[in-house]
Amino acid sequence: MERINRWRAQGGWQEVWRHDSAETGTPMEFSIFLPDAEGPRPVVWYLSGLTCSWANVTEKGEFRAACARHGLIFVAPDTSPRGEGVPDDAEGAYDFGLGAGFYVDATEEPFARNYRMRSYLEGELPRLLAEHFPVDLARQAITGHSMGGHGALTLALRNPGRFRSVSAFAPIVAPSSCPWGQKALGLYLGADPAGWAEYDAVRLIEGGARVPALKVDQGAADGFLAGQLMPERLLAACEAAGQPLEYGLHEGYDHSYYFISSFLSGHLDWHAEHLG
Amino acid sequence: MERINRWRAQGGWQEVWRHDSAETGTPMEFSIFLPDAEGPRPVVWYLSGLTCSWANVTEKGEFRAACARHGLIFVAPDTSPRGEGVPDDAEGAYDFGLGAGFYVDATEEPFARNYRMRSYLEGELPRLLAEHFPVDLARQAITGHSMGGHGALTLALRNPGRFRSVSAFAPIVAPSSCPWGQKALGLYLGADPAGWAEYDAVRLIEGGARVPALKVDQGAADGFLAGQLMPERLLAACEAAGQPLEYGLHEGYDHSYYFISSFLSGHLDWHAEHLG
Repeated sequence: MERINRWRAQGGWQEVWRHDSAETGTPMEFSIFLPDAEGPRPVVWYLSGLTCSWANVTEKGEFRAACARHGLIFVAPDTSPRGEGVPDDAEGAYDFGLGAGFYVDATEEPFARNYRMRSYLEGELPRLLAEHFPVDLARQAITGHSMGGHGALTLALRNPGRFRSVSAFAPIVAPSSCPWGQKALGLYLGADPAGWAEYDAVRLIEGGARVPALKVDQGAADGFLAGQLMPERLLAACEAAGQPLEYGLHEGYDHSYYFISSFLSGHLDWHAEHLG
Repeated sequence: MERINRWRAQGGWQEVWRHDSAETGTPMEFSIFLPDAEGPRPVVWYLSGLTCSWANVTEKGEFRAACARHGLIFVAPDTSPRGEGVPDDAEGAYDFGLGAGFYVDATEEPFARNYRMRSYLEGELPRLLAEHFPVDLARQAITGHSMGGHGALTLALRNPGRFRSVSAFAPIVAPSSCPWGQKALGLYLGADPAGWAEYDAVRLIEGGARVPALKVDQGAADGFLAGQLMPERLLAACEAAGQPLEYGLHEGYDHSYYFISSFLSGHLDWHAEHLG
């Protein structure tokens, strides 16, 4: 573990760390905001979307003031393994491979060795955080954007008890049913959609998984709304399952960080209430 | 005038505009945040630092929530003319030429035709804003970072009555006395420092110029503090002149947008008080 940068910000420290990951077999970077606060602090995970690294939300997310106010540690991992030798999309497309790990453990070659973002986030990175930072892992929340909203929802649904609250911005809620998800899950996990269920929030909810508190915000002017995001499928699954969901559809907002930064502070207020 | 982008953000619109500038002889871009608020709104100008365009503060400044709360229009111009045929630093250095207009009207060749950021900001751009946006030009404030702090201070000191309040982040306060300023003013205005006085905040204050309200914040870990910024010269000039100054020196903070974004919202609260 090596700290590669840090900046004083909002009365805390915004840091960036690098470590060699056993899961991905590559160096991995993440950013972490550490408020100036005594004792172990609750942790909010933020999973980023396609093409992003830790940098996008760290620079543009406008989350630090709320984290400082509530004493929250904010962790932003990368979206995939990276580096020489890590297999990428065959044509270099933005929606698969580097920057597009989809938070799965790949089973298909040539991706199975490196693309292990699920195990990285479910096991390795939380253990490292507990060793190096004053985190209170009994108080965790998770959020994310787009592909990272998919990651946040599925990680929480598969790990009952780990997160007290779960939120997402414009999440991919039904990857088995949209082009982004079908391409990525097909290549990482194999062509049979039967094997994708644990990486599909709607199918997890339909299969009985629940989270204690769920909040989703979506821009109504998001260009990916109808073709990729399909929030109505999440609404229907939650309704049918009795899973409480606070859903907001916001006129004029698109898929960008101008949308995320408008609502992330409010999500953190909401997570802070659940984290106590 | 052509709007080239806009995003819904914080209950307002973050827009980017392009127009042909008579002053610079080039297309110029600026960003403008328009809160959803009735009637003519007060305007806060933000002048950016070396290497920046409108994009840096627009993406990383964390100013929109405060502007929406107070009903402020926030304008971020570019830092120089740009485009083919605009002369740049002879060696492509970051501290002169493109991205480094220093908010002067150049008198030296080959810069005099295009590098007219003073007249652009003192005349042309305010006139355009009045034609196209619901601005209340009786209520203006100005702020800026580094070279843009220099721009904000000198523009306000030269134009008494235009701005009700003036603030800056890590400003270049004495360009006649620091390497950045000596290089830029020498090349734009000629080698004789006698001709630089109206572009030097400390010399303007020593010469009798005043602003009604002045606030400066500076990071104590800023790598440019001693060699380029020299805030002690501003403190001494204000003290000698009886110019009120609210000055904050902040342990740990550097010259980056992590510093600016930590304090810009507070500056906007302060400007809003003065703007009424």
